[in-house]
Amino acid sequence: MTVSATERAIGILDSGVGGLTVAREVMRQLPRETIYYVGDTARCPYGPRSTEEVRRYTLEIVEFLMSQPLKAILIACNTATAAALQAVRERVSVPVLGVIDPGARAAIKATQNHVVGVIGTQGTIESGAYEQALRRIHPHLTVHSLACPAFVPLVESGYRHTELADRIVHDTLQPLKKTELDTLILGCTHYPLLADAVQKAMGSDVNIISSAEETAVELSTILQHQGLLTMMKAPRHRFFTTGEAEPFAQIAEDWFGYPIEVEQIALSESDAAGLKTQTW
Amino acid sequence: MTVSATERAIGILDSGVGGLTVAREVMRQLPRETIYYVGDTARCPYGPRSTEEVRRYTLEIVEFLMSQPLKAILIACNTATAAALQAVRERVSVPVLGVIDPGARAAIKATQNHVVGVIGTQGTIESGAYEQALRRIHPHLTVHSLACPAFVPLVESGYRHTELADRIVHDTLQPLKKTELDTLILGCTHYPLLADAVQKAMGSDVNIISSAEETAVELSTILQHQGLLTMMKAPRHRFFTTGEAEPFAQIAEDWFGYPIEVEQIALSESDAAGLKTQTW
Repeated sequence: MTVSATERAIGILDSGVGGLTVAREVMRQLPRETIYYVGDTARCPYGPRSTEEVRRYTLEIVEFLMSQPLKAILIACNTATAAALQAVRERVSVPVLGVIDPGARAAIKATQNHVVGVIGTQGTIESGAYEQALRRIHPHLTVHSLACPAFVPLVESGYRHTELADRIVHDTLQPLKKTELDTLILGCTHYPLLADAVQKAMGSDVNIISSAEETAVELSTILQHQGLLTMMKAPRHRFFTTGEAEPFAQIAEDWFGYPIEVEQIALSESDAAGLKTQTW
Repeated sequence: MTVSATERAIGILDSGVGGLTVAREVMRQLPRETIYYVGDTARCPYGPRSTEEVRRYTLEIVEFLMSQPLKAILIACNTATAAALQAVRERVSVPVLGVIDPGARAAIKATQNHVVGVIGTQGTIESGAYEQALRRIHPHLTVHSLACPAFVPLVESGYRHTELADRIVHDTLQPLKKTELDTLILGCTHYPLLADAVQKAMGSDVNIISSAEETAVELSTILQHQGLLTMMKAPRHRFFTTGEAEPFAQIAEDWFGYPIEVEQIALSESDAAGLKTQTW
């Protein structure tokens, strides 16, 4: 079956449920577009893994996605963007977007005093990807980065609405409270699920940047400039997970506010080239 | 002299000084990039002119700009974007951006109740360009449009800080106060110079969208995806006007907060093809 370019889906991938924050923004800002989402829940979190491993996992998901009729790929995971954006771009012919550059751009737009903070997983922070993205565009920024390894497990385990979550967020962010930052990038797609706690911990004067919103704008921009926006009105999204479908569906329903159907897939681990075998 | 692609300038054009709001945002968000700005002050305002005339004028400016080493063109005028974006794209090989799509995208991101207002010149509002841009992306929006023909003369004549300006803005916007809009697009690049008066007239709950900020983000996105961001650190901007250099320089200094040098050019009127002769 041939599907015209504009009617193809947008592939969105993440280590787990965090990328659903991006998927939700894409649905909200581009309500005509169809989404195929893959959450690699079985191997989540990506944060503590080596760059090479994250790149291999990402390429495996991309290979699965490219077997579907797609017009763009969105890596809705900061760790995977830092590790694999370039590698994915080299392998596919459709536009590939990450979440780091849109977040950097939004922070540059928002900051008045040119002091910006970034929080993310260990992998994202150690990669220095945000500092690079920010300074690539704006040479006169001061950037403070902080790894928050406890945040992803908090979200994936469904504890985000608890008092414990508030306290962990508050305590973790203390080092950034001592800086002059006026803008803080949520450099992990799980973190918008903790945005209220982060805003409370940092104070109401700090601009909190969610990559999710900005990445959806950037996707809209790229699709339009390439003539790829659809005119359809009734998209049929699909959600895939490498883990158990049930807990994934529960978190997604909590986040979207309505039930979704989740399909389980298996991506067999392949060699370092990352593009060999898979079964599902 | 050959200039490498990334080191070329960004050409920004407007009917007058309004596009300086966009130029300022580009300088703020992309401080490495060089800008060549043309304000067609001698033929301002474009708002009441016919589509064909605005298209011809725009193409004349584009021809002048393309004689310079450029890597992108930004039509920083809503009237000219509505009339000539497509025609300019057909004639040049560099990326061409308008101000309408970025403003539409930002409104879609900002609105919660899906009721959006647009104010602009007569030409922009009559073209229906914003409604089209908004509905192209989001089919479920209610859009209220209002032409505000008094606003551009207010800004170009330097009266924007007066009580009269506040009153004109307040009275003009009354029809929109009766709607449920939660987001208002400043659909003319002169209007950010009246943003405070507009916010006061509409109330603090309404999101005021400046195309300027969003267009700079979109330019950043397109340049990056095409590998065109520069690594230079000391850009040398140039400002051209078809009118008197002195009043242009005064308004620009008022807006930028520092003096700029303005060069006067003459674009001779040519035939409808718009790409014949010019002298300066």
